[in-house]
Amino acid sequence: MPPGASASLWHPEAVSTLNPSLQISPEGKLLHLLTTEGLPAATLLQILDTARSFVSVTEREIKKVPLLRGKAIFNLFFEPSTRTRTTFEIAAKRLSADVVNLNIATSSQTKGETLLDTVANLTAMHADMFIVRHSESGAAHLIARNVGPDIHVINAGDGRHAHPTQALLDMFTIRHYKGGFNDLRVAIVGDVLHSRVARSEIHALTTLGVPEVRVIGPRTLLPRHVQNLGVHVFHDMEAGLKDVDVVMMLRLQQERMSGALLPSAGEFFKSYGLTPAKLARAKPDAIVMHPGPMNRGVEIDSAVADGGQSVILPQVTFGIAVRMAVMGILVGN
Amino acid sequence: MPPGASASLWHPEAVSTLNPSLQISPEGKLLHLLTTEGLPAATLLQILDTARSFVSVTEREIKKVPLLRGKAIFNLFFEPSTRTRTTFEIAAKRLSADVVNLNIATSSQTKGETLLDTVANLTAMHADMFIVRHSESGAAHLIARNVGPDIHVINAGDGRHAHPTQALLDMFTIRHYKGGFNDLRVAIVGDVLHSRVARSEIHALTTLGVPEVRVIGPRTLLPRHVQNLGVHVFHDMEAGLKDVDVVMMLRLQQERMSGALLPSAGEFFKSYGLTPAKLARAKPDAIVMHPGPMNRGVEIDSAVADGGQSVILPQVTFGIAVRMAVMGILVGN
Amino acid sequence: MPPGASASLWHPEAVSTLNPSLQISPEGKLLHLLTTEGLPAATLLQILDTARSFVSVTEREIKKVPLLRGKAIFNLFFEPSTRTRTTFEIAAKRLSADVVNLNIATSSQTKGETLLDTVANLTAMHADMFIVRHSESGAAHLIARNVGPDIHVINAGDGRHAHPTQALLDMFTIRHYKGGFNDLRVAIVGDVLHSRVARSEIHALTTLGVPEVRVIGPRTLLPRHVQNLGVHVFHDMEAGLKDVDVVMMLRLQQERMSGALLPSAGEFFKSYGLTPAKLARAKPDAIVMHPGPMNRGVEIDSAVADGGQSVILPQVTFGIAVRMAVMGILVGN
Repeated sequence: MPPGASASLWHPEAVSTLNPSLQISPEGKLLHLLTTEGLPAATLLQILDTARSFVSVTEREIKKVPLLRGKAIFNLFFEPSTRTRTTFEIAAKRLSADVVNLNIATSSQTKGETLLDTVANLTAMHADMFIVRHSESGAAHLIARNVGPDIHVINAGDGRHAHPTQALLDMFTIRHYKGGFNDLRVAIVGDVLHSRVARSEIHALTTLGVPEVRVIGPRTLLPRHVQNLGVHVFHDMEAGLKDVDVVMMLRLQQERMSGALLPSAGEFFKSYGLTPAKLARAKPDAIVMHPGPMNRGVEIDSAVADGGQSVILPQVTFGIAVRMAVMGILVGN
Repeated sequence: MPPGASASLWHPEAVSTLNPSLQISPEGKLLHLLTTEGLPAATLLQILDTARSFVSVTEREIKKVPLLRGKAIFNLFFEPSTRTRTTFEIAAKRLSADVVNLNIATSSQTKGETLLDTVANLTAMHADMFIVRHSESGAAHLIARNVGPDIHVINAGDGRHAHPTQALLDMFTIRHYKGGFNDLRVAIVGDVLHSRVARSEIHALTTLGVPEVRVIGPRTLLPRHVQNLGVHVFHDMEAGLKDVDVVMMLRLQQERMSGALLPSAGEFFKSYGLTPAKLARAKPDAIVMHPGPMNRGVEIDSAVADGGQSVILPQVTFGIAVRMAVMGILVGN
Repeated sequence: MPPGASASLWHPEAVSTLNPSLQISPEGKLLHLLTTEGLPAATLLQILDTARSFVSVTEREIKKVPLLRGKAIFNLFFEPSTRTRTTFEIAAKRLSADVVNLNIATSSQTKGETLLDTVANLTAMHADMFIVRHSESGAAHLIARNVGPDIHVINAGDGRHAHPTQALLDMFTIRHYKGGFNDLRVAIVGDVLHSRVARSEIHALTTLGVPEVRVIGPRTLLPRHVQNLGVHVFHDMEAGLKDVDVVMMLRLQQERMSGALLPSAGEFFKSYGLTPAKLARAKPDAIVMHPGPMNRGVEIDSAVADGGQSVILPQVTFGIAVRMAVMGILVGN
């Protein structure tokens, strides 16, 4: 698509048919991080190993390394997310990069500039990296296809499609607490249908060799044919949590809490909210994860969220190191 | 309160009953700056003395010191205030810190995340300091009670309760122009009832040994029993200003200018607006202060605001140095 | 006007009657950059020459120089423009300055603080430079007249009046591709009437010695007596583009696209949209410029915008270097 074309984004279905060489070079170098789908295990592990070295940086007295000094990183947030923007901003600043935040909803987008014109302009300012958050699936791919070879794109969440850094920090957390992936039983619980996090997690878990991945949720919130992704489907949460090592909860979007797909938030909590009683079905040393922000009393009980098996805050800590690792690898390449 | 509880903030009344050890350690170290109430004179003076050394930094060619290099400071503004946010941002950058601005009203707060979950997440990102502005009294205290020992909280204004850095910069300004506190007569004029600035000033002035503090305002805008704070109450401005050394004007909030508490902004100006004629009642070398932003023609006449006795702009200059001092002391501890 | 007066800005007409010594000292030093009108050719060329050295900085591995380390630069945007704000932010960061963004529409302005009080406050924080964008003509001049001698103001667009850094980057681009100004025929096309860019370009082109400047547009979108500025007026685009070396397109503001001044965007495109056919009237090596953001299909055809004669993206690249040059010269003086 020429840079001048109007930014009609790809359909979510079309996104997954993309050429994997868009994010990995023929020599195996990471060019962009758009999705965990199709990323080889070696690349995933390279990111996790690099992140481990950055965990120590964030614990130092002076939490900075000069790796990206003089690099210009643009947070292109077409959909507001202070939380995710902040993690990338902090990660970039700890690498000594110059960060510019662009909340595009309120500016040039309203002046009718297309997505690709915006990106072409920022590219002309000698940008080094774009962190892209967009409500439409495929936005980050579209940008990656249209930037020059020296510019790297990180997908910070596109529509229902992918959120690869979230999945990577989840993998880091699992490896940290479980030592590896080879003997695990992992359950992903909740609104899988609308979740870019779930999609990215399933691809990463499968690639890293987790032998049993389960998805648990009501029929209305699971994608049709989700078992084609290699997962086991459960509609009953107690059955689904039986003997799992890892429970990955998903956020229930406000707009799903009432309406056609769900009777109510209260009903959802009764069936799929993670309570101490339901968690007792999992292995005694099972860990509980959540990408945040949590709806306490909707998908998770506070007793679990703040309990001894919760690793929800360590996920956030590791998230900074993982994002530093991805940025470092991309610009280092 | 566990981190997971919903953020039901304390009532303003309850705030002042807090344990003073929340902001001062048993050894007398400043842990957080939440209120001037209960702060010992030694601590107040330590901040003023440290600020004096930072005044010279802000006058240098290169206005930077590396004291907070690699530290992550979050401006958590739950209530918009470009002006106050800017002073903290500038102060932090002159100390070489990394600053992240979070305007929370528009983001995770709208996703239903509680105040404490937001703070727990930022803490997990290895935050070093939170600058908190909130419309509810006690917000900064609540956060201070729930962060780890390595994280410091500065209250940048909470409800009607406190605004300690404003009070401290006012003390700095008074000492700068008057040489000390021991022989002064100070008047605070206007809407004392709704003013966190007035509360913080009264506590600081009293602690620093100012022998006579007066409050001047209509009955409807003075707190009941305000004399219990050790101040003299005047409803007549000319009487109240007689022979004072310092006139501290308060901002009249837009929403008070008409309605039950006041007939009109014009009426208020006639009785309590600071004009050259009223100022003539004070000592000839009296200084005039205002926390800004001013309502010219409402609580202060432009002839006074821009006149020879006004130290309103020096207050702003000293404000940067005072905020640098507080940050430096907190992180240095 | 005293700092306390309400910010009743000058009328656009009045702006151009300003004393040129406001931006140039008697010794020829640049004090502020407010308008290209009245700037001597030597000053314009000094900026272009300085910018040339900064182009190479932006192409380095580490795109930073320490020229403005410790300086505080405030982006004062009273009118939203992410794009322009970003160019100044990036330029300032590449000079190692501390940048604070203030979107004033939403903060102290709503608290009733006057423009000059805002500026006086920021000045008291030891600001070094203000980048000012305002919807009213003369705003940057008003600020420049009221700041101290150590503070420099750059006009980033005021009403319909001036946008001097845009004009300067356009001059840089022309000189880059054409080698100079002395033999050129330059056409400015579109809504000249409402365009601060056009005004600033005409002054710069004339001063730099371009022998023939043309303006092309419908009667309703050209200022009356525009020929008094030394330009040739064309209402027919094909005639106007005949044998020109440079085509400078203007953005058609959304709000003009229908209504009293224009029948419709489609009609405008038919008469004044730059298509390959119309461009063929210009010299074969003519360059096409646009200040962005473009309305593709309104004032410019995508085939031209993305075609071989377009230098629209190089304009953006040079824009960073030109802004770095202006900042460096102002603070260096």
